[in-house]
Amino acid sequence: MRLQIFKIGGNVIDSPVVLNAFLDTFCSCRERKILVHGGGKLAGELAGELGVPVHMHQGRRITDAPTLRIAVMVYAGWINKSLVAALSARGCRAVGLSGADGCSVITRKRDPEPLDFGFVGDITQSSVDVLFTERLMEDGLVPVFSPITCDPSGQLLNTNADTIASALSMAFKTKYAVSLRYVFDKEGVCCPGSDEPLPLLSRAQYEKLCGEGVVTGGMIPKIENALKALSMGIEEVYIGKTCIQL
Amino acid sequence: MRLQIFKIGGNVIDSPVVLNAFLDTFCSCRERKILVHGGGKLAGELAGELGVPVHMHQGRRITDAPTLRIAVMVYAGWINKSLVAALSARGCRAVGLSGADGCSVITRKRDPEPLDFGFVGDITQSSVDVLFTERLMEDGLVPVFSPITCDPSGQLLNTNADTIASALSMAFKTKYAVSLRYVFDKEGVCCPGSDEPLPLLSRAQYEKLCGEGVVTGGMIPKIENALKALSMGIEEVYIGKTCIQL
Repeated sequence: MRLQIFKIGGNVIDSPVVLNAFLDTFCSCRERKILVHGGGKLAGELAGELGVPVHMHQGRRITDAPTLRIAVMVYAGWINKSLVAALSARGCRAVGLSGADGCSVITRKRDPEPLDFGFVGDITQSSVDVLFTERLMEDGLVPVFSPITCDPSGQLLNTNADTIASALSMAFKTKYAVSLRYVFDKEGVCCPGSDEPLPLLSRAQYEKLCGEGVVTGGMIPKIENALKALSMGIEEVYIGKTCIQL
Repeated sequence: MRLQIFKIGGNVIDSPVVLNAFLDTFCSCRERKILVHGGGKLAGELAGELGVPVHMHQGRRITDAPTLRIAVMVYAGWINKSLVAALSARGCRAVGLSGADGCSVITRKRDPEPLDFGFVGDITQSSVDVLFTERLMEDGLVPVFSPITCDPSGQLLNTNADTIASALSMAFKTKYAVSLRYVFDKEGVCCPGSDEPLPLLSRAQYEKLCGEGVVTGGMIPKIENALKALSMGIEEVYIGKTCIQL
């Protein structure tokens, strides 16, 4: 049986037109499916309004206590429930989750050395408990994961959504032929000076583009996760806009 | 079989000592159980920080669009996930829900006449879908409901937590002997000038106390819901602090 795991980020979430088109396509997918979402502009805007400074390092947010509260409110609250309600209105019975729910994704707070990322959760080999998520899908429900997890002590942690999507793919690959789809508003990964996406991207090409400073920011964890997922036996990984045509 | 439905509000949520004591007791309850939570100080504080004015009418918040966003972020986000993570750390596999999740509580936006409460959801006869929540409990999971629901069009709506607790009680009363427990930091409903709670409160007493202005604010929907639940066949309703001793 096939399982489609979709990841969307700010590029999709922040545009009502792109988001609605994505949700329509997502609902038209009749296979088992999971949606993983990241953030968007709202967390940064809210941080600005509340006077909480935003710190980034290689596309990953540094999460102090006030930033964690904002992340949980915006990601697991506003964005997650807005997506679930929008899916519900389309006849898709979705269940919005953080990793704490059903203990579905339990992470480890990242080591503060060499750089303290704050309240950030790292996925481990045993992070994903497939049983709860699997049971939801068996019942015809669609899990919608926000990028919030917790550690065994109950500490909520901000967690990269691309990594959650990748970890879910790997956890389910023994049961399903998994397709992992990183959906965003670009056609794919392009070479400098070109709007044409690369039809295929190898690790060697990626490392070259990274070294040249072409691949930067939030694309680094996305491609790292994609390559890792492929090396671990995921059937196929898409990065781009067109992957929403199923 | 018995089902224990607990409702906690700001009095419990805002005090770490009271909350931890409640969560310990809640986890010690070995029967099937549901937790419904309301808000607390945080939503009002956040509204203040963001310059969003708070309007109340008879203990119920008037919810304009900015207030709805705050309610969803704080109730379905921060409070819900903090509770789920704290339960998870105690070995209790909880699943945090809004009514949109699994289409478990679908409400109707309140009629704007005679007073427009804004984005507020009213429970109807068909609001609660017991199947999803029942299935979670069968699997040993503990549903934790936030006071956020949605209507069939996918509009998120702020919904009184006492009313959700009462509606869940009524929806489950054909399957279970349901106890409904409104937990807060007072011993119960007291007469003026007395710290001793009434051991029993009749509708006639309640209406007298209401007319005298003794029962006000957030206690009105709490007692109304309790009396309604009893009249509809709920086994027992507790209001007070001691009801956390099981």
